[in-house]
Order: sequence, then structure tokens, then C-alpha cells
Amino acid sequence: MKPVCLVMGAGAGIGGTVGRRFAQAGYHVVLCRRSDDEGLQRMIREIEADGGSASGYLMNATQDDVIESRVAAIEAELGPIEVVVYNLGAQIGDRSLADTSYKAFEMGWRLGTFGLFRLAAAACPSMVTRGKGTILVTSSTAAVRGNGGQHSHAAAMGGRRMLCQSLNAEFGPKGIHVCHIIIDGAVDAPDTLGKLLGAERFEALRDARGRAHDGLMLPVKIAETYLHLAQQHRSTWTHEIDMRSFSDRPWWNH
Amino acid sequence: MKPVCLVMGAGAGIGGTVGRRFAQAGYHVVLCRRSDDEGLQRMIREIEADGGSASGYLMNATQDDVIESRVAAIEAELGPIEVVVYNLGAQIGDRSLADTSYKAFEMGWRLGTFGLFRLAAAACPSMVTRGKGTILVTSSTAAVRGNGGQHSHAAAMGGRRMLCQSLNAEFGPKGIHVCHIIIDGAVDAPDTLGKLLGAERFEALRDARGRAHDGLMLPVKIAETYLHLAQQHRSTWTHEIDMRSFSDRPWWNH
Amino acid sequence: MKPVCLVMGAGAGIGGTVGRRFAQAGYHVVLCRRSDDEGLQRMIREIEADGGSASGYLMNATQDDVIESRVAAIEAELGPIEVVVYNLGAQIGDRSLADTSYKAFEMGWRLGTFGLFRLAAAACPSMVTRGKGTILVTSSTAAVRGNGGQHSHAAAMGGRRMLCQSLNAEFGPKGIHVCHIIIDGAVDAPDTLGKLLGAERFEALRDARGRAHDGLMLPVKIAETYLHLAQQHRSTWTHEIDMRSFSDRPWWNH
Amino acid sequence: MKPVCLVMGAGAGIGGTVGRRFAQAGYHVVLCRRSDDEGLQRMIREIEADGGSASGYLMNATQDDVIESRVAAIEAELGPIEVVVYNLGAQIGDRSLADTSYKAFEMGWRLGTFGLFRLAAAACPSMVTRGKGTILVTSSTAAVRGNGGQHSHAAAMGGRRMLCQSLNAEFGPKGIHVCHIIIDGAVDAPDTLGKLLGAERFEALRDARGRAHDGLMLPVKIAETYLHLAQQHRSTWTHEIDMRSFSDRPWWNH
Repeated sequence: MKPVCLVMGAGAGIGGTVGRRFAQAGYHVVLCRRSDDEGLQRMIREIEADGGSASGYLMNATQDDVIESRVAAIEAELGPIEVVVYNLGAQIGDRSLADTSYKAFEMGWRLGTFGLFRLAAAACPSMVTRGKGTILVTSSTAAVRGNGGQHSHAAAMGGRRMLCQSLNAEFGPKGIHVCHIIIDGAVDAPDTLGKLLGAERFEALRDARGRAHDGLMLPVKIAETYLHLAQQHRSTWTHEIDMRSFSDRPWWNH
Repeated sequence: MKPVCLVMGAGAGIGGTVGRRFAQAGYHVVLCRRSDDEGLQRMIREIEADGGSASGYLMNATQDDVIESRVAAIEAELGPIEVVVYNLGAQIGDRSLADTSYKAFEMGWRLGTFGLFRLAAAACPSMVTRGKGTILVTSSTAAVRGNGGQHSHAAAMGGRRMLCQSLNAEFGPKGIHVCHIIIDGAVDAPDTLGKLLGAERFEALRDARGRAHDGLMLPVKIAETYLHLAQQHRSTWTHEIDMRSFSDRPWWNH
Repeated sequence: MKPVCLVMGAGAGIGGTVGRRFAQAGYHVVLCRRSDDEGLQRMIREIEADGGSASGYLMNATQDDVIESRVAAIEAELGPIEVVVYNLGAQIGDRSLADTSYKAFEMGWRLGTFGLFRLAAAACPSMVTRGKGTILVTSSTAAVRGNGGQHSHAAAMGGRRMLCQSLNAEFGPKGIHVCHIIIDGAVDAPDTLGKLLGAERFEALRDARGRAHDGLMLPVKIAETYLHLAQQHRSTWTHEIDMRSFSDRPWWNH
Repeated sequence: MKPVCLVMGAGAGIGGTVGRRFAQAGYHVVLCRRSDDEGLQRMIREIEADGGSASGYLMNATQDDVIESRVAAIEAELGPIEVVVYNLGAQIGDRSLADTSYKAFEMGWRLGTFGLFRLAAAACPSMVTRGKGTILVTSSTAAVRGNGGQHSHAAAMGGRRMLCQSLNAEFGPKGIHVCHIIIDGAVDAPDTLGKLLGAERFEALRDARGRAHDGLMLPVKIAETYLHLAQQHRSTWTHEIDMRSFSDRPWWNH
């Protein structure tokens, strides 16, 4: 039986691509995403065509019990979850305070912070029993500095970062590796950046900064680092890492 | 008409003491706290006996609209809010993940992060119109590092810190000073630390580390720094400051 | 006998102005600077015209023993040094790596890091004996993030910041307050920024961002915060504080 | 012709082990260390027995021109330096300020900060011409927080970290990847920790925390992450990463 890698937030960017990489490395990958069943099924078929093994579910992670029951079902039906890639978030672009509704602010927290708490509460007990497990948390610039228009996203990601550290403090010595990954730059991801910008502007950005320029972060390359982090020996765990394009300024310089 | 200083979380520790200090400095102080009307009225009488001016309200800040309507009522009835001291939080002591209920985690966010967002949404528009205002945010060690048992508190405070930075980015240039104050040590505060420890242990701690040892942070001394921050000239604002006892280790050393 | 405040780096910006403020607060101020005896004597006369008390010395702090012997002479002749304002640095503007000589890099360290170490080695023993003392260290954006062209300055200031923390760890519990003050913006200082830009560009900057705009940090206002930090009660010490103009972006946003 | 990996500080811990790993990955490795020619030759023979290729030099990096001339000689004789592992430092254990001589403080800077500056000045121009290069900088807890007795080490490492960031800002867009690696824990390294503790205490520590406990960081495992960092695609570079044993507290928790 293959070890299981659960990807929460498996769109056509970091999530799905990391999932595919873990499938190549021998995991059975469970892909969860909010919508687009067709895209989800295509991902699964691509993984299988690759010789890998995957299953997938549409899931609205803000709903009661969907995270918890999914984790339980996977453990019961598919086997031990060895790796979770927590890739949910609610980057809604820049909005002034006046334009940030209470609902939007709460949604940021539900996906960015509370969902990770729920996932950890559901997944950690079995991992503790087995004495091992990895939770890779995709995070962002907004986890380390607030910025104009980022009220909801920064509050959610700042909470996420501190939650990762408190999870580490409790579960690291029990064999669970929680890694907070700061994606500090634009990702060449049609499902997030692409939708935020619209198809035309996204293609223009790809021409201007991506493609041959390597100024947009490539998900297939990000996935290599995720896999490396999951394979680190327990005497040498990374708790925080940042990533960005060579041509981009790091957050502390812009 | 006196300028108004609104204190949210005006217990017998930092909140109430800071309120009293601002009253001495010429502000009309509005004290809001969750419970203990008798304690609240005593505070008001003490401020008045001092020659100051204060009013007070019991307020459960997690309820809909209580923050918003209070801000509106103060502006309408008492005058412009020049300073807000946001002092709410939900430090519930150390609890393992298994012992941290969803409700406790959400409560941490409602008081620690969302309440500040609501307060800012309510208070900033008038401050922007007037071109000035100060929001002093009491924060804690948990805003800059997670730790064992701090899942709820650290997530809430980490969110609060990033929210302060995003508020600064939008509102600093409009004349609103948001300051994130890291209280990095035990405060000699009967309403918070006292209740957490119980009367006996709190008195023992005062004998061992507080009083002549100055190892517990004195609210009256903290209040001096809050007042200083509110009085900083706009060419020299502080966005983040830490405070602790001389004999205590800063967070990065323990 | 007045308590002594020693200012190292007492030009017509933060250093001299902080000195003057401490003189008003009752300290005998010892002003040390590298050059311009005429400017130094004028500062002293201004302080005395204010009703204050000051003395001054030209000092090349990179030379052997000048810091050490000055501290010893002050303690012997003028009385206990209660406060040191360490204000030396070597901001030389932006220079590429190729344009940063070994000598310039070393000079940055000698003034930015090693000078503070020498000052602490000279001043701390007497402060420990007396059980009190304050060392206020002017620092900069470069202490918390490197940037293009800042090789020398950032390395020096990063070293300074970590040195402040290690001094705190050893000497805080012995009553010595070391505070690292991040001046995160342009200061309206003719002796540093003025010389870096030249008179004409400096005046143009003052018109565009300073003066009525309050976009340049005013030394007289900075001095208020320095004085406040020196007066903090030992149960509520600040180890790190940042300062900038309301209209300026903090370092984490640019 | 193999690409060259230059290791500065190639003792029997991180440096030598990383070198061996890069040799396995196809680099010709140049090992530089201060002393123990026998140990150096043994390392080279082990690499060669592995099927790899290596050369080595004894080098006192604090001496004038030894870094510069070594870099030039390698480029002229062995080929393009693609990777530098900068692994020099001067951790001298905990020493009070009174016990930290000026010479020790300066030595910390010469190895910890200035040596990296010299190396960068020597190696970057050719890397810029080629449009690529990697500088992996071993760093430590002391780069992100000072602590008691760490005056020299913390000042040196804090300077190193800021220097890495300023190098990144200038050279990242030119294709040179500088990565600051925070080794936040004890390493199972006979040449550094072993010598600091003495043989007997080191073996006792290995029994108590290392070996089956995995509480000491294993150089062979650290080396995997160094290699991964050197292989990151330029659209996804890491500028800072931390590493520690699963059972150890991260720096922000102790």
C-alpha cells in the first residue's frame, strides 16, 4: 500500500503540481479542491498516465466537518496519510479597508488559518501514533509583512505562520514535521494568478516576466522543493523556507 | 471639549491603567470591558477623583455591532475619538491541540484579530476625515513566535500583527498612527494574570518576582510608554515596540 | 553633581539634538564627534544658553583607545555615565560590490559594530557596579534587511543589532538597559543626509518632503523618544523600537 | 571539465561532508581548511575512492589575499566555480563581555563577515560574466538573535546575514544565487562541536542526544539540503532556510 499524500487546494498551480510530483515519487495522492470536477478528473488521469495513483474530491473547506471527515475516510480507506500539503488561501487581491467586508475578512481566516487548525486537529493524532508525518504549508509574503489592501490576507497568513510555529512546538518532538513555505513572488498558476488577472493580462504577464524570463515561479520547480522538504531526515528539518524568482525582489526589499 | 480616548479591554491591568493615564493627560476616557460593572464604576470614580473625566460601558466585543455602535455613539455624543487603545485578547493559558476546541480557537480570533478589524473599520473613516488618530494595539510575545500550547493565542496575535501592518500601510499616510506594542513578559495585572493563576499563586509570584524585584511589568509604567507613543510627532512614529522587565529574557532568548 | 550623558557621534542631527534634549532634562552632556570643532563649540554654547551643561571632544573613534580613555576620563572627572547615546555609523550611500573597497567595508564595521563593542566594554563595568545605566543605540533600516549597494552598511548594522541583543542578555539583569533604535527613514539632518546629498539637493528634498510635509524625521522629535526610552522604568524596558515619518513606507513595504 | 564547487571551511562536519556530496553529484570539489593536512588528504582520498574528484588546500582565511588568489587560481587552473560553500566561522563558545578580547571580536568578524565579503568580491565578477553561480552560506542561530556570551559570534553572524541580503539584492538578478542557511542546532561534527566540548563530553552528548535519537544534526543529511538548494531552478530560489533536529526547539522557543 502506497503512503498517502493529501493535497488540500489542488488547483492547476502549486497544489496540483505538487500532487503530481508526489505521485511520481510513489505516493498515492488525494487531491481536494473546491470546484471544477472536470479539471480534477483530468489531473487524476494525467497522474495515472504518468504511472501514478491518485483520487480526488471536490470540497468546500469552509463547511463543517468536510476536512475532518475526509481525513478520517482516507485513513480508513486508503491508508496512513504521511504528507499533507495545505495549500488553501483566500488571496482576493488588494482591497481597501472600506472594500473589505466582514465576510471577506472572515473567509480569509476560515481558509487561511482555521482550516489549517482543523486539518491539524484531524490529522495529527494518527501521525503521533505512527511517530511520523509531514505537513507542508504553502504560505506567502503576507505571512511576514502586512501591506496596503492586504487586511484580510495578511491577517490570515500571519495567523497561519504563528499556528505553524505552535504546531511545531507541540508536534515536532513527536515526529511531525510542519514546514511553513513562504512563496514570495508571483506563481505561474492559471487557477489563482490567472483568475485574479484574467486570461489576457495573465498571458501578457507570462510574456513579459514569465516563460523565458523565469520571472514567474514555476510550479513544477516549486514541487521539487516541496518533495525535498518532505524527504528531509528528522535530524535536519526545515521549519521555514522562502522562495522567489531570481529576478524578483524579496519581500524585505519592496 | 476634551479629546476622547477609547479603551477596549479596560480591566485592572494595562487597559484601565492606560485609561487613567490618558485621563490625567487631558483626555475624556471611555472604558469598555466585558464584565464587572462594579470594578468599572470604581475606575471611573478614581479617574474623577483624580480630576479626570471618564465614562464606561460593559461590552461583549464578540457580539454583532457592539463595537461599531459604540464607536458611532461616542463620536456623536462625546466627540472625536483621537486615541483607541485596543487591549482585547484571549490568552487562555497553554493548551495542547487536543484541548483547544474549535470554539476556543475561534474566540481567540474574534477578540484578537477580528475585533481589531471591526474597530478599525468603525473608527478609521472619521479619523481619515480629521486627518489624525492613534490606535495603540496591545500585543504579546505570541504575535512574533508561536509556542507549545499557544495554538489559539499565537494564531490570533500573529493575525493581529499583520493586520496592524496592513492598516499602517493604508492609513499612516492619512494621518492615522497604528502602533503594535509587544508586551513580552508577565504583567502585574490582577484581572488577567491574576485570574489565570488564582489569587494565591499570583501573590506568590508577586513576592518572588514582582514588587521590589520589578520582574513583573507594572501597568502604571507601561502606561507612560503608551502615552508617549500617542504623543509622538507624525514625522517620528513608531510602528512596533517591545517591552519587558529588565530581569526577564526577551522572547528570542527563551 | 549631574548625571552624565555621553553622546558618541554628536553632529547636527540626531546626536547633537538628543544631547541637547538630555541637557534640558538635567544631564551633563558630553558631546563627541569626529570633526568641526567650531560646530561642537556652538552646540555647547547653545546648551549652556539653554541653562544646560555640556562639554565636548573631537574624537576619531576608529583610533586605538580613544573611546576607552574618554570613558575613563569622564567617569574620573565628570561623574558616573548614566546614559550613552551611541550614534556612530558609516552610511556611505549606495555602492556596488565592485565599488566597495575593503577599507570602506572595514570602516563600516569599525564604526558600526566594533565601536559599540569597545564602548560597552569600557562603560559596562562601572554601570554594573552601580546597578544601572542606559545605552541607546541609533540604528537603521540596514540593521534589519540588506539592500542593493548596502554591503558595508548592512553588514555593520546587522552586526550591531545582534551585538545589542547579546549585550542585553548579559547586562539587562544587571540593570543596564540597551535599546536598539531603528531609524527607518530619512532624517532632516544637515551633517549626515545633508552632506550625502549636497546642500542644493538637501534643500530641495526638504521642500518636497520635509518642512510642512513632515516627511523627514525631525531630530528634535526623535530626541523626545530617546529621552523617554532612557526614563523607562526597569520593569518595562524596550529593547527594540522603530521610527519613521507617517508618510513614509516602513522597511517591510519597500 | 567538471564544474567546480569550492568549500571554504572543509572540516569533518558540514563543510567536508557537503563537499563529498557535491563530488558525488559530479562537481570537482576544492576543499579549503585552516589546518590538519592529513585530515584534508584523507577527505580527498575518500572522495576519489567514491569515484569523485577533489583537490585541497590549507588556508588561513584571515590572511591577506589568500581567498582572492585561491579563487583566481581555481578559475584559471580548474575551471569555472559554479558553487561556493562558505562555511567559515568563529564560534568560540559562550564568553562574557569581559572575557571577549578585542582580538576575539575582530576574529569573529574576519571569519564570519569580512571573509564572505572578500569571497564575494573575488568570485562574483566571473559568475556575473557567466550569468550564473551559487553561494551557499552556512550560518547559525546567532545570525537571527543575540544571546548571553555570544557577543563576537552574534555580531559576526548578524553582519553575515545582512551581507547575504545585500549580495542577493545586487547579484540575484544577475543570476547568482546566495542562500543564507541557518543551522539552528548542534551538529554531529567532531571538528567543531567535538573540539569545543572535548572528546569525552562529545561522545556523551552523542549517546544522550545523537545517534539513535537523531537529536544532533547529521552532516550527511544537511548535505542533501545544500545540494538541493544549489539545484533549485532560478524561478524558485530560496534566500533563507532554517534547519534543526525534530527534537530540538527552534531558536524562537528557547
